[in-house]
Amino acid sequence: MEQRELPKKYKKDFGHSYALGPFPTFELLKHRPGQVRAVYYREDFREQDKLRGLCQGLGVPCLLWPRALERIAQKEVCYAAGEFNKYPGSLRPGAPHVALAEPADMGNLGTIMRTLLGFGIRDLAIIGGGADWWNPKTLRASMGAAFQLEVEGFDSFPDYLAAHGAGRSVYPFMLDGARVLTPESCPAVPCYTLVFGNEATGLPPVYQSYGQSLFIPQGPAVDSLNLAVSVAIGSFLFTQKNPVGKEA
Amino acid sequence: MEQRELPKKYKKDFGHSYALGPFPTFELLKHRPGQVRAVYYREDFREQDKLRGLCQGLGVPCLLWPRALERIAQKEVCYAAGEFNKYPGSLRPGAPHVALAEPADMGNLGTIMRTLLGFGIRDLAIIGGGADWWNPKTLRASMGAAFQLEVEGFDSFPDYLAAHGAGRSVYPFMLDGARVLTPESCPAVPCYTLVFGNEATGLPPVYQSYGQSLFIPQGPAVDSLNLAVSVAIGSFLFTQKNPVGKEA
Repeated sequence: MEQRELPKKYKKDFGHSYALGPFPTFELLKHRPGQVRAVYYREDFREQDKLRGLCQGLGVPCLLWPRALERIAQKEVCYAAGEFNKYPGSLRPGAPHVALAEPADMGNLGTIMRTLLGFGIRDLAIIGGGADWWNPKTLRASMGAAFQLEVEGFDSFPDYLAAHGAGRSVYPFMLDGARVLTPESCPAVPCYTLVFGNEATGLPPVYQSYGQSLFIPQGPAVDSLNLAVSVAIGSFLFTQKNPVGKEA
Repeated sequence: MEQRELPKKYKKDFGHSYALGPFPTFELLKHRPGQVRAVYYREDFREQDKLRGLCQGLGVPCLLWPRALERIAQKEVCYAAGEFNKYPGSLRPGAPHVALAEPADMGNLGTIMRTLLGFGIRDLAIIGGGADWWNPKTLRASMGAAFQLEVEGFDSFPDYLAAHGAGRSVYPFMLDGARVLTPESCPAVPCYTLVFGNEATGLPPVYQSYGQSLFIPQGPAVDSLNLAVSVAIGSFLFTQKNPVGKEA
C-alpha cells in the first residue's frame, strides 16, 4: 500500500477531487462510477463491507488507509471518501435551468445543488466563475447531489444565451424585479432559466434586459434573503407550476 | 483606555455576547439600544463617524480598539462590533410562530432568523436546546435579524404547548407528513406554529400527534432538504396564504 502515493489535499487546479464522508461517497459510486479512481476508509467505518462490495463490482480500488483520509479531510472526522476525476458537465436543452452569476460561498452552492435536485431541476449554469463547484466543501454541502447534476460554466451570460437561449424564457431574480413572484403570479412556461446573482451584490442592472425580472416578496426589515433561500423559493414555485418531466 | 479590561472571546455561559461586523452592529444599536454595553471599531472603518454619532446619542461607549476586535472576532477581519447584554425573549400570543427542535448548526439557525424576518414572522421557539442563538456566529449568519425577533427556549414541545398552544394550529414538518404542502393545499388559519426537526434526524414520530403533519414535495433523488430551505418554503407559503398583520 505504501507504494501508492498519498493523496494530496485538494486544490482548484487539480484534475481530480474528493467526495468526503460516507453519504457523498456512496452517491459518487452510484451516479458517476466511471470517474472513481479510488475509495478510502477507516477501520471503524461501519459500512465497510457494503463499500468494499460496491467497489469490487466496479473494479475500483478500495483502501483501508486512514492516513489518506486525514490528509484530504477538511478538519472533520471522515470515515470514508472517494477520489474521482473531474468530468465535463453539459446542460440539457429543453430542461429547466438555474444560472448563478458568480456565487461566492461553497456552502451556499452545495445547498443550492441539493435543493435543485430535490425539486427536480438537474441543470446548473455557473456564470463568470465564482465558488469552485468541484471543491470537496461544495460537494459535501450538496450531500452528493452534485453527482446527479449537470454543471457547466460560462464566461458571461451572453455566452450562456448563445448556447441555450433559443426557445427559453429567462427570469432574473432581482431586488428591483419588475414582477412580484407569488404562487399565483408564477409563470406557466414550457422551458425556463431562473437567474440569481452573487450573495453580496445580486445581479447587475443589465440583467433586467435579459428577461422578465422577478422579486420574491419580502419585508423591509431585512436587507435581502440568503441566496440559497431565494433559489429554493424560486425553484419550488416554478417546479410546482411547471412540473418537471411534463414538458416536451 | 487600557484601564478597561479587554473583552473575552465569547463563551456560551456569558451573560453577554457580540454582534460582529458593521451591519449586525448597526442592527443591534437600532433595535436593542438599551442592551448595548460598548461598541468597538478599527481605524480604517469607513462609517466610524456614523457609528460614533449613534453611540453618542445613546450614551454607549464607542471605542477605537483594534485589539478588542481581534480578540472577539472569529477568524475574519472585523471592522466594528457591538458588545451587549443577553436579554430574555418572550413569544407573542396571537402571532405566527416557528419552532425548531434541537437545531444543531449555527449557520442554519442564523439563516432561518433572517428568512423568518424577511417573511414577517418574528417569533421563534427553540425546543430542547441545540445551537446557541446568542453565539456571534448565529447572530452574524442572521445579518442582525436576531435583534428584531423574539427567541424563547423551552425544555420540551409539551412545555411550549402549555404556554402557547391555546387557539393555535400546529404543523409539524416531517418526511412522512400526512399532507403534501403546496400553494394550493397550504392551510388558511388565523394562528399557527410551524415545527421543524433537527438537521440530521428530523422530528421524532411523536410530533405526528401534535398537529397536522406536512411534507414539502421533493423527489426521491435527495435524502431530504436542508433545514433552512425547508423553513423557508414553509414560512413563505404560510405567510403568503395568511398575510402577517391581517390576523386579529
